[in-house]
Amino acid sequence: MPEISLKGRKMPESPIRKLVPYAEEAKKKGRKVYHLNIGQPDIETPEVALSAVRNYDHKVIEYSHSAGMLSLREGLSGYYKTLNIDVKSDEIIVGAGASEALLFAFQSIMNPEDEVIIPEPFYANYNGFAINAGIKVRPIVSNIDDGFALPPVAEFEKNINKNTKAILVCNPNNPTGYLYSKEELEVLRDLVKKYDLYLIADEVYREFTYDGRKHYSAMHLEGIENNVILIDSVSKRYSACGVRIGWMVSKNKEVIATALKFAQARLSPPSFGQVAAEAAMNTPKDYFEKVQKEYLERRNTVVDGINKIPGAFCPNPSGAFYVVAHLPIDDSDRFCQWLLEGFSFENQTVMMAPASGFYATPGKGKDEVRISYVLKVEDLKSSMKVLEEALKVYPGRTEFKVKEEKVQR
Amino acid sequence: MPEISLKGRKMPESPIRKLVPYAEEAKKKGRKVYHLNIGQPDIETPEVALSAVRNYDHKVIEYSHSAGMLSLREGLSGYYKTLNIDVKSDEIIVGAGASEALLFAFQSIMNPEDEVIIPEPFYANYNGFAINAGIKVRPIVSNIDDGFALPPVAEFEKNINKNTKAILVCNPNNPTGYLYSKEELEVLRDLVKKYDLYLIADEVYREFTYDGRKHYSAMHLEGIENNVILIDSVSKRYSACGVRIGWMVSKNKEVIATALKFAQARLSPPSFGQVAAEAAMNTPKDYFEKVQKEYLERRNTVVDGINKIPGAFCPNPSGAFYVVAHLPIDDSDRFCQWLLEGFSFENQTVMMAPASGFYATPGKGKDEVRISYVLKVEDLKSSMKVLEEALKVYPGRTEFKVKEEKVQR
Repeated sequence: MPEISLKGRKMPESPIRKLVPYAEEAKKKGRKVYHLNIGQPDIETPEVALSAVRNYDHKVIEYSHSAGMLSLREGLSGYYKTLNIDVKSDEIIVGAGASEALLFAFQSIMNPEDEVIIPEPFYANYNGFAINAGIKVRPIVSNIDDGFALPPVAEFEKNINKNTKAILVCNPNNPTGYLYSKEELEVLRDLVKKYDLYLIADEVYREFTYDGRKHYSAMHLEGIENNVILIDSVSKRYSACGVRIGWMVSKNKEVIATALKFAQARLSPPSFGQVAAEAAMNTPKDYFEKVQKEYLERRNTVVDGINKIPGAFCPNPSGAFYVVAHLPIDDSDRFCQWLLEGFSFENQTVMMAPASGFYATPGKGKDEVRISYVLKVEDLKSSMKVLEEALKVYPGRTEFKVKEEKVQR
Repeated sequence: MPEISLKGRKMPESPIRKLVPYAEEAKKKGRKVYHLNIGQPDIETPEVALSAVRNYDHKVIEYSHSAGMLSLREGLSGYYKTLNIDVKSDEIIVGAGASEALLFAFQSIMNPEDEVIIPEPFYANYNGFAINAGIKVRPIVSNIDDGFALPPVAEFEKNINKNTKAILVCNPNNPTGYLYSKEELEVLRDLVKKYDLYLIADEVYREFTYDGRKHYSAMHLEGIENNVILIDSVSKRYSACGVRIGWMVSKNKEVIATALKFAQARLSPPSFGQVAAEAAMNTPKDYFEKVQKEYLERRNTVVDGINKIPGAFCPNPSGAFYVVAHLPIDDSDRFCQWLLEGFSFENQTVMMAPASGFYATPGKGKDEVRISYVLKVEDLKSSMKVLEEALKVYPGRTEFKVKEEKVQR
């Protein structure tokens, strides 16, 4: 029997999905499982997007342009204009989700053994894409104690070497929810300028910001137009993860021309998804107002809930719909599995993503979990109660950090 | 300005799409351009597939299972049963087109520098996928004089070395239309068994066979169940290229488990496309009868048309909807460009794909073009007339092969 590949062996299993069999077992026992583990919002997709697909009237479902339908790219160009970002339709390559767009970016700019610096914890699948592209991730630790802010410049500079090709940030951040400030982005601008690096900015959660804070885009940075690659998607913005429409943006013509060749090889992005994505841009403004209000209430529910639990705490992040929480536990993988296998409170339990899967540094994230607040407030309240009860009896519970220490955070 | 990647530089431009600007110029001059260059059928997508999408009634367009919706994979399992192929739903990984499925296969089984043997001419994008995955294509020439039949075993054995990991065949073949026989597949079986290789079989044109010939699948081969990876798609079968739904099949559990990790990293295949693909399997049988009859007439029109042109000839292939034709020309790239730039007959011209892009061996295919017969018979007749007239005046025309030589073929 012939062998599988080395990179195939190296590919990590999804830290989010690997607990699925345990959740299925719990459900078979009749238990209610609250899914705090996934990034699939329960918010309805805007009607305008769904009805565009229902009204699709072509007789043949044809390939589109390899870079995506021109009308979609023109629509995106218009969308960016509302954000004061100047993007032309030929500066966009549409992919099957931000996933494919990021792969195009990696493949277009990095050679095997080249390194991309990513503040950790980071979106776990970045690891998979890096292995797929044969490149290396160099993590820099961001810390729960300062809310997962951008690590200091010195940390970046310590990790820049001759193989460093890019810095990748997700803003607002998955998994931490952290919203990078204009000043932090300017630090990144100075770094990529000084060392002639690419800055890859994953901004798929751009619209999800709270506390009156505004998102500042990498595309707003001046003087590094040829260094920036923006990764974007309709998945979260319009609660349309299944359409698989994302894209990369760059003012760097060579990057776009190169990515287009990778795009041409796979012919085109999904047609129906593009139809939905184009129409989604006509979503009425009050949709977002409602969604943002809903998520804000959810965030507050989770953040308050966590910080009330003895020994647990989490920052109060201003973006996306995730928090990374510290819990008084020995091992988040073990804890999350135990919640599904060995625990229930009033016949309910919770499923969370162990944070270990979001760190590249071994051993990190063992006392942290990622919580997605994609459930209704009532369910989130119940989830927090379940978590609190679980931590009272979890056999791997560690000593509580003293209250005072927690207050200082 | 930071550099782009080496593989990005190496990626070929699509040989099919690179002439597009010249075609656009010709159209601007008011000329009718017959598109014999693309694999986009003009046949209508079955109504059952289109209406399934129109009736999509979910409120949220969610991620599906990373391997594809279970109901789709069960449907595919049932489809294979009708072909006497035993495939279970968990032996299938659905991708964004056969393109992504083939990339999953390459990434799962091959290391950088590993080699895949492919009879040439071959589907040009195999080159792109190989560069993307960082592997090497080793071409073996198949010959127009014997209709592009499988090259002799000795040719394969001469090219097998310690880095050889797989043999890839497209059956029926794009670009040659050649339909491999059971005997030829058994030759491949013996080879992959002897050298412990993978056999990757791209069978997306399975239903397009003529002259009463039946398709024999790599999945029908006995004794190499763990070696075979099938690549398949709804794109051509149901004239639904834009849905971007293809898949890989393998009985080799390690291959499937590995491919699933690559699939998980990009979350899921397109949801609407899966809905269309699942419904498409209920296409009435007479749809295919009509389609097959139509393509048969088209093939005959093209094959007769080519072979009537002095100095030109092509085999009479039994599958897919392509032929590779020999033309009395110096350089097919130059000729195809000249057709668009410098020629018209009754204000019409033709666009074809230079065969050079389908060969990996430099210099091969200079006197060959690929013709897709995806136009109506009347248009194909006009195209053949245009081609005949063009060859009378093309400045780069070579001496004609003598009639007698042609008759022997």
